[in-house]
Amino acid sequence: MAASKEIEEGTAFAPKYDADGLITAVVTDAASGELLMVAHMNADALAKTIESGEAWYFSRSRKRLWKKGEESGNLQRVKELRVDCDQDAVWLKVEQVGAGACHTGRRSCFYRAVPLGKSGAVTLEFKDAEKRFDPDKVYKK
Amino acid sequence: MAASKEIEEGTAFAPKYDADGLITAVVTDAASGELLMVAHMNADALAKTIESGEAWYFSRSRKRLWKKGEESGNLQRVKELRVDCDQDAVWLKVEQVGAGACHTGRRSCFYRAVPLGKSGAVTLEFKDAEKRFDPDKVYKK
Repeated sequence: MAASKEIEEGTAFAPKYDADGLITAVVTDAASGELLMVAHMNADALAKTIESGEAWYFSRSRKRLWKKGEESGNLQRVKELRVDCDQDAVWLKVEQVGAGACHTGRRSCFYRAVPLGKSGAVTLEFKDAEKRFDPDKVYKK
Repeated sequence: MAASKEIEEGTAFAPKYDADGLITAVVTDAASGELLMVAHMNADALAKTIESGEAWYFSRSRKRLWKKGEESGNLQRVKELRVDCDQDAVWLKVEQVGAGACHTGRRSCFYRAVPLGKSGAVTLEFKDAEKRFDPDKVYKK
């Protein structure tokens, strides 16, 4: 098989990291299918996730490996891990432990909608934005 | 509000593009919730998507704006668009027109699973990998 065909149709796991050594991770709730968050993994985070079955990421702002829930207790148990056609993104179907995935206290990070059919400045609309926990209590700054 | 608080808790849409001017777009089937694909948008693709209600992306390999389905006919009608807490990712809930979203001919790009609990070399397992269309017929190379 040609290289690109092998990546798309083969069984060898060959994650394609970007210039910063990261791959995109899409995280959904295994039960409801809800999109919880988008994060990034380096090779170490991906290996730890595969071995442990719990989600590890790489924080671009803090520039370090990070176990989801290490501070908040809101771990993610990975029920299934998938990779996309060109192997530059992974999909984690997780059991979200605790009240939510988002550091703002919500269940999902995607709690605002962008109205469609408009041009120019856009005003976001809050959706499913109920706070499930108090971030000031859960995270020590 | 402080800048980061405004980004997370405000109603101003302020997409945060990366060094290449791109934002991550996660695309799910509005009816089934299935993850179809992950792509990237530049500001132009995002504006066209918001205005038209059809999905536009930016191809990193071809380095150009790209309307989903322009060649295959497999358009995506956007039912809802959301942005995440730090505004560096968007979520499109779409009606997928045609047989599938993936250029390999599948419904979703995520047709292979990574087995968990292992270390070292990993062998992928095909899941929901049925081909819905023939890419050689749909795409003229």
